[in-house]
Amino acid sequence: MKVRNIAIMGLGTVGGGAYDILVGNHDYIKRTRGVDIRIKKILDRDYAPLEKRGIPREKFAESVEELASDKDIELVVETMGGVEPAKTFITTILKSGKSVVTANKELLAKHWSELEPIAKANNCGLFFEASCVGGVPVIRALGESFQGDKITAVYGIINGTTNYILSKMTSEGCDYATALGEAQALGYAEADPTSDVDGYDAQYKLSILGSLAFHTCLPYTSILREGISKITANDIRNARDLGYIIKLLAIGKRDGNRVEARVHPAFVPAKHPLASVSGAYNAVYLNGDAVGDLMFFGAGAGARPTGSAIVSDVIKALKDGPTYTDFDNSGRPDKDIELVGDFMSGYYICITVDDKAGVLSRISTVLGDNGVSIKAATQEPSSDESATVVFLTHAAREHAVMQSLKTIENLASVRSVDSTVRVLE
Amino acid sequence: MKVRNIAIMGLGTVGGGAYDILVGNHDYIKRTRGVDIRIKKILDRDYAPLEKRGIPREKFAESVEELASDKDIELVVETMGGVEPAKTFITTILKSGKSVVTANKELLAKHWSELEPIAKANNCGLFFEASCVGGVPVIRALGESFQGDKITAVYGIINGTTNYILSKMTSEGCDYATALGEAQALGYAEADPTSDVDGYDAQYKLSILGSLAFHTCLPYTSILREGISKITANDIRNARDLGYIIKLLAIGKRDGNRVEARVHPAFVPAKHPLASVSGAYNAVYLNGDAVGDLMFFGAGAGARPTGSAIVSDVIKALKDGPTYTDFDNSGRPDKDIELVGDFMSGYYICITVDDKAGVLSRISTVLGDNGVSIKAATQEPSSDESATVVFLTHAAREHAVMQSLKTIENLASVRSVDSTVRVLE
Repeated sequence: MKVRNIAIMGLGTVGGGAYDILVGNHDYIKRTRGVDIRIKKILDRDYAPLEKRGIPREKFAESVEELASDKDIELVVETMGGVEPAKTFITTILKSGKSVVTANKELLAKHWSELEPIAKANNCGLFFEASCVGGVPVIRALGESFQGDKITAVYGIINGTTNYILSKMTSEGCDYATALGEAQALGYAEADPTSDVDGYDAQYKLSILGSLAFHTCLPYTSILREGISKITANDIRNARDLGYIIKLLAIGKRDGNRVEARVHPAFVPAKHPLASVSGAYNAVYLNGDAVGDLMFFGAGAGARPTGSAIVSDVIKALKDGPTYTDFDNSGRPDKDIELVGDFMSGYYICITVDDKAGVLSRISTVLGDNGVSIKAATQEPSSDESATVVFLTHAAREHAVMQSLKTIENLASVRSVDSTVRVLE
Repeated sequence: MKVRNIAIMGLGTVGGGAYDILVGNHDYIKRTRGVDIRIKKILDRDYAPLEKRGIPREKFAESVEELASDKDIELVVETMGGVEPAKTFITTILKSGKSVVTANKELLAKHWSELEPIAKANNCGLFFEASCVGGVPVIRALGESFQGDKITAVYGIINGTTNYILSKMTSEGCDYATALGEAQALGYAEADPTSDVDGYDAQYKLSILGSLAFHTCLPYTSILREGISKITANDIRNARDLGYIIKLLAIGKRDGNRVEARVHPAFVPAKHPLASVSGAYNAVYLNGDAVGDLMFFGAGAGARPTGSAIVSDVIKALKDGPTYTDFDNSGRPDKDIELVGDFMSGYYICITVDDKAGVLSRISTVLGDNGVSIKAATQEPSSDESATVVFLTHAAREHAVMQSLKTIENLASVRSVDSTVRVLE
């Protein structure tokens, strides 16, 4: 059996996971999948950790050009992360006619439309199962499974860091800052947690998943994005009292040519399967017009789960060769697609008001005037002559709710609109 | 774009579902997947229902030979079910060099090792995503995803009929016969429900899934099989009181060269995700040494979900051509595989005894003598000077528990061992 040589750029957590699986399961992969994979070179900024791993020096590469010009190397894994220099490096590799396997969701969300044509022009492939939802094989499924279905929805919990923080807030009743601190201490959140907690990471992933599911580009910039940093311990308690769990959801829907896409915290009914997806786990729902509802659940991050996705792509690339997206990957949605900003959703609204008669009624009137129908309302007096009013609405138009809140904020007896969280229907 | 002609043998529920999807989504499939599929011929025993569907007569085939000899037809879908004449028909089609897409789990479990070589010898494919778990794409995932993983477990709820019956017994407290009757009235169970309720259907599916997951033949005859007909309303209540839900599980495990495979009812902890899979839904867990736990959830049967799997196979077959199993598909496990009958499991045991002092102690002694450790025991007096003793054991050897029960049955104060149900750890 011919040895197939590959290289890895960036042997951090995910790259290291892929390395360990490729080495540890080498014989098993050779026997069951029929490919004899050898890691010939590794490119990294710092070789000290690689030496500690016992990786021999002759495997250390000096530059991306060394990989590109090595005729033995068929494929390069990119697990550096970030846009640059990953983009330049991947471009160099693709131009040398070698396929690339990447876990880089940010790069893909931002520059997929530039990179895919380079791969195509050089008869090699760009593989990216590991870019979304760790080891959960949603990208392969969108390409290879339920191929005759019109996918009408893709949604779920696709960021492990925020799910860890929200799970912690839910189980321990602590506030956001405390939960974030613990997540950072345990390595579940980065020192600068912006990409996760502000929803960028989920936005990138939904851009990729939505594009594949709906067969049209879904630019990440077209996706409504709200993070979790405004969620309070009070919101978590109110959610629980009303029978919900708060999760950061990514939601993509397609109805005919109307597409909506959004990332935001949401009230998830406690009995919904997504409500029980806790900690660093991820889950993605798909709905197809033939297959109905499907859910995929698993580890959304981590060295070995994400490494598993990388290795699976490496094997597929070496065995089957490249495939390309089956839609116009121009970076823009098809011309006939309408991106819907004024979507329908239920809402949880928490407002602090003066503790006087008639306030609840005045707020209700504003909501009603805007066509927002109330499902439940409670009013609890607080200490300082104020009261907390909590509303749950029926499905209403996003713009109508936002318009209502502007009016409500200016009502005489309203002190502050404290929270607005959408509700998963 | 070239028209790709196919035929369907058996336009019943599943074949009809596939037909509707192929016709209804024809343009969508052509645009997004690049294949222009035309159903040229249909073979069936009775054409009256097809005429009612408005299918023109020129599509009706007279014989399987007509399909085999038609040079236009590239691929044939088999949705007849049962072993014969499906086996003869599929053999004829494969020998004519046309690929076959089948939903036939019984045929595959019994004759896969004969059919695959025929496909191989004639350079065509045998596709069978629809044979297991309806629209849930587990078979494709086992072939295409987490390809570098050693799969150590595949288990779950893979029969919709029994899950419907057990869900009904759980939610309504009714007995088995009542729930079965309702399932039959609603079309969830067949007039002769043997294949489902006695676990044959799950056994066939586990044989296919386990073979793919473990890369070695897992003959259905080597799989322990117990159905649900002995489960009583009392067992369901006892399970609930102890914090469990009873489900029919199919369980396959591989640890090194040791493989265990079994289909039986099981106590599933109420908080386990499988406990909330109710009605006709299915769910499959996989564990890989790299990816960790994954769960796939969706509709396990039905015209459109199973039709979705058929159509996806048709598209894949026409686009990518055949693939074959990557293990020795001889019908026998590899020589170095040890099939483990004496597996470890927790057990629920319900025994009727004389209501006398010392009985619980004597039974406990027998269990202890056989190395079976008790986790919980309760004794409730009944009306006729008898009492009901319920045990939950820690994980114990199957053979030790069975040996204990033989001894316990012969104890003087024991009237009957009423139920033994394994517990999912």
